[in-house]
Amino acid sequence: VMNMNRYETGKALLNRLHGGHAGEGIVNALGDIAPDMVSMIIEWGFGEIMNHTALDLKTRELCIIASLVTQGDTQPQLRAHIEAALNVDTPREAIVETILQTAIYAGFPRAVNAMLFAKQVFADIDQKA
Amino acid sequence: VMNMNRYETGKALLNRLHGGHAGEGIVNALGDIAPDMVSMIIEWGFGEIMNHTALDLKTRELCIIASLVTQGDTQPQLRAHIEAALNVDTPREAIVETILQTAIYAGFPRAVNAMLFAKQVFADIDQKA
Amino acid sequence: VMNMNRYETGKALLNRLHGGHAGEGIVNALGDIAPDMVSMIIEWGFGEIMNHTALDLKTRELCIIASLVTQGDTQPQLRAHIEAALNVDTPREAIVETILQTAIYAGFPRAVNAMLFAKQVFADIDQKA
Amino acid sequence: VMNMNRYETGKALLNRLHGGHAGEGIVNALGDIAPDMVSMIIEWGFGEIMNHTALDLKTRELCIIASLVTQGDTQPQLRAHIEAALNVDTPREAIVETILQTAIYAGFPRAVNAMLFAKQVFADIDQKA
Amino acid sequence: VMNMNRYETGKALLNRLHGGHAGEGIVNALGDIAPDMVSMIIEWGFGEIMNHTALDLKTRELCIIASLVTQGDTQPQLRAHIEAALNVDTPREAIVETILQTAIYAGFPRAVNAMLFAKQVFADIDQKA
Amino acid sequence: VMNMNRYETGKALLNRLHGGHAGEGIVNALGDIAPDMVSMIIEWGFGEIMNHTALDLKTRELCIIASLVTQGDTQPQLRAHIEAALNVDTPREAIVETILQTAIYAGFPRAVNAMLFAKQVFADIDQKA
Repeated sequence: VMNMNRYETGKALLNRLHGGHAGEGIVNALGDIAPDMVSMIIEWGFGEIMNHTALDLKTRELCIIASLVTQGDTQPQLRAHIEAALNVDTPREAIVETILQTAIYAGFPRAVNAMLFAKQVFADIDQKA
Repeated sequence: VMNMNRYETGKALLNRLHGGHAGEGIVNALGDIAPDMVSMIIEWGFGEIMNHTALDLKTRELCIIASLVTQGDTQPQLRAHIEAALNVDTPREAIVETILQTAIYAGFPRAVNAMLFAKQVFADIDQKA
Repeated sequence: VMNMNRYETGKALLNRLHGGHAGEGIVNALGDIAPDMVSMIIEWGFGEIMNHTALDLKTRELCIIASLVTQGDTQPQLRAHIEAALNVDTPREAIVETILQTAIYAGFPRAVNAMLFAKQVFADIDQKA
Repeated sequence: VMNMNRYETGKALLNRLHGGHAGEGIVNALGDIAPDMVSMIIEWGFGEIMNHTALDLKTRELCIIASLVTQGDTQPQLRAHIEAALNVDTPREAIVETILQTAIYAGFPRAVNAMLFAKQVFADIDQKA
Repeated sequence: VMNMNRYETGKALLNRLHGGHAGEGIVNALGDIAPDMVSMIIEWGFGEIMNHTALDLKTRELCIIASLVTQGDTQPQLRAHIEAALNVDTPREAIVETILQTAIYAGFPRAVNAMLFAKQVFADIDQKA
Repeated sequence: VMNMNRYETGKALLNRLHGGHAGEGIVNALGDIAPDMVSMIIEWGFGEIMNHTALDLKTRELCIIASLVTQGDTQPQLRAHIEAALNVDTPREAIVETILQTAIYAGFPRAVNAMLFAKQVFADIDQKA
């Protein structure tokens, strides 16, 4: 059962944050194996929660990055949300600092690996530009 | 070997963020079993990283909260950083929204338990006021 | 924005699985701090996913228990889902065996602590009966 | 010290669940660096726990999958147990639904990555057929 | 099916490491809900792995402590293995240093909480003496 | 603000443990994206904590390996610390046994994957020799 209002709102925000990149790619790849998962991500994740206004999108993306670095084994999502943070004009320094801060809370291995991965994501973006 | 400059800067920020509350309590309780850990937390955590300017303190505290909720089993730190976030004028709604956002990334059990704990921390503050 | 169909379906399943117990208690306690989280849990968790028919409710509850034991620091949810498993006629032996199996995959500390907690939940139920 | 009874029972179940595939491959690769680990996995994991009858093998495999998705960084085991689940006639839909359910408990990144990996395992099987 | 040789060896080592304390208490409490788990812990954990000679017992206990601190939510096991480390004459300073080292790898919250818990375990021992 | 004493001590220990290998490689790769992270790792990690004498370097490296195996998703660090353990004359058997021991506490998937990775690291070293 799809809620069109949430779905349209979510699709628009998904495009703004991840347009043409990793986030949308993940969503599309899920479509034929788990279509309900796609509608959940778009309706709930983007149409509902991400669309709340108590946090601006920059802060929200940095908090998501902190959660992903803490978990580990989340490279596709980390790429998607570093890109999303940049798409809403978060400075690279803020992303770097968020990862550095996480070293104190989640340990250096998680943070070092995420930092080197962010460096690669930045380099990929520079190469495309 | 203590670095006085970092230590003084760190102590001042520790007091501003956690003055008289859980953060300082943890630090003091550590003093007689692991004094090096105390100087590390004050010099490195507060005197160095937390003192960088690429993230404002509100955003920094929300990212720390996102990391702590994701890890689980971090109640003393979660209390200390909810208090710290409030001490630098973060609205309660932003803390609630950060925890809610984390549900999507770290799962509902972590986020639900953190939300109920935040409710308790808010109530404790209201009772003292 | 609430979806009444999903909400009603979810509320009915919530009552069937957790009626009067820990699950509903958590949901109610969340109501005044994070009402959106409540509607998400009821609409999405119970009205949508839990209501899919590709897994029967017993298997679903045992998989949830395996995930919760693996995570650690999820006692309120573990209690709620042990009760829910029993409410849909899962034998206690199947719950015990699920926790034992998890020892191989998530290690003995997680599984031992969950086993002793399950023993307590069973004893609490026997005492009420 | 090897227990032949458990070892033979375990070897038979290992072959039934993982015959010719990832599970056996992992076990064989361990043989020259950690032979005791191999006998533990076969005697304890397969000859003892997996051989208990309080859970049928389908439910057992789905619970293992839920635990592995929750942990993250377990791709070789996830492949082995998706194959094992299929080898005891678990429908693909039940595996997909187990992973989807886990999104609520362990978060979407773990579940999305596992879902895309399951899609790949299914495709690999289809290609061999 | 019990292997008496491993069981007797394991029981003796269990008593040496955890005699009269938390370790044995956990094992006994498991007996009526999951007797197979008890024989596994005694035969496999203590009769087999812990009995290998490639690591001395002090180093082994410190590695177990490092793993438990990293996981979080393992207080009963952490108490049992701090006691076991002391029972094989590990100096308190070595336990404190192991927890401090873990802060770099698993983050400060895990390590700080474990350090304060170790302080409590040491105090409990001093009070009994 | 750099502390030269700690930095020089740390650099010397870094070279002794990881000279020319993975550890130093990670540190160098971090230099242009997060120079503060490099000075933290060298000053704090190696110049301070690793330089304490309450644990010998062999035991320290084995405890770090136990923590890394427990966390998962830490292959670059696991390689660096297996090499470091060998550089301070830890026998391969002690590394293998530490990983095997961790299976009981962090589960078999983490430990099996780490064991196969250690086998690869040993083989890479043999090939260079």
